[in-house]
Amino acid sequence: MSAPARRTGGRSAAVLSAIRYAVEDLVRERGAEKVTIPMVAERAGVNPTSIYRRWGDAPALLNDIATYRLDPERPLPDSGDLRADLAAWAAEIVEHYRKPLNASILRGGSAMAGEQETDCLRNRRAEALLIVERVRQANDGASPVGADEVIDGLIAPIVYRAIFLPWTLDADLATRLVDRLLPQ
Amino acid sequence: MSAPARRTGGRSAAVLSAIRYAVEDLVRERGAEKVTIPMVAERAGVNPTSIYRRWGDAPALLNDIATYRLDPERPLPDSGDLRADLAAWAAEIVEHYRKPLNASILRGGSAMAGEQETDCLRNRRAEALLIVERVRQANDGASPVGADEVIDGLIAPIVYRAIFLPWTLDADLATRLVDRLLPQ
Repeated sequence: MSAPARRTGGRSAAVLSAIRYAVEDLVRERGAEKVTIPMVAERAGVNPTSIYRRWGDAPALLNDIATYRLDPERPLPDSGDLRADLAAWAAEIVEHYRKPLNASILRGGSAMAGEQETDCLRNRRAEALLIVERVRQANDGASPVGADEVIDGLIAPIVYRAIFLPWTLDADLATRLVDRLLPQ
Repeated sequence: MSAPARRTGGRSAAVLSAIRYAVEDLVRERGAEKVTIPMVAERAGVNPTSIYRRWGDAPALLNDIATYRLDPERPLPDSGDLRADLAAWAAEIVEHYRKPLNASILRGGSAMAGEQETDCLRNRRAEALLIVERVRQANDGASPVGADEVIDGLIAPIVYRAIFLPWTLDADLATRLVDRLLPQ
């Protein structure tokens, strides 16, 4: 009984991977805001109906692909030192958006944002909360910063630059922002 | 000789105003990323050629309208107190993006950003530089913050929230951000 299930799993993983590659190629070629579900279906060689059934619309599909690229399951830096952990986490996000494809997907997501928090940013917020929560647990509930300050002080400038000024995403940015957030 | 010139000026101001209203209506109805020059021309009752000649493309037209709405010629707060001036300036920008139309134009601009700094953000940067420069002149070249810190600490979180979390643009945001930027 397990063989057919496994075969189905293999096939659906292959379909998912074809869809991901198709989205990435199309975003690279045309810009995220021009990508439609029929276009992705054609490129991936799958039926548009299966894409509509799983994602509903192109913004949801793009958000999912963007989220996938910065894996929400990846381990977060956890050295016990808040400054080092925030710097490593921020550096990883800067590195992510230095790739033109990821910045382009973010711009496509921006165009369609505003109604509700996107998955991609919800994950960054969950990560900020987790990092702050660990500090609180180690310090009787005290933390030099809250999650809102981490979002405003680190994620907002990185995302702002990724959207509007991608050429300013330099290797030192993460450290500079953390130093401003946590003055020494 | 001055009458025809004046008449032309009046006519071209009326055309400009029709184009601005058309852009604002279309952005409100369809979202900035769907607005095209032929659409604006039809709604404004002008020839598309005159729009192409003046703006070149839809992103440039949208940027110009967005810039116009937060008039770059307006006087900047100048009380001599950096904290008060930054708070008043940031509050004005928060207020601007609390209007759904302005946030929508910003999202449309985001989708098309990344190649070069947009007019709208260049104006905010020029304003940050001006405010910091005034402080330096009054203090033998010293300022507690530079323009980059003002952009990362005030403009980036406001724009980030305007794009992704517009419901968090509350009336206290400007003061909270300035307090973090300039700890007391």
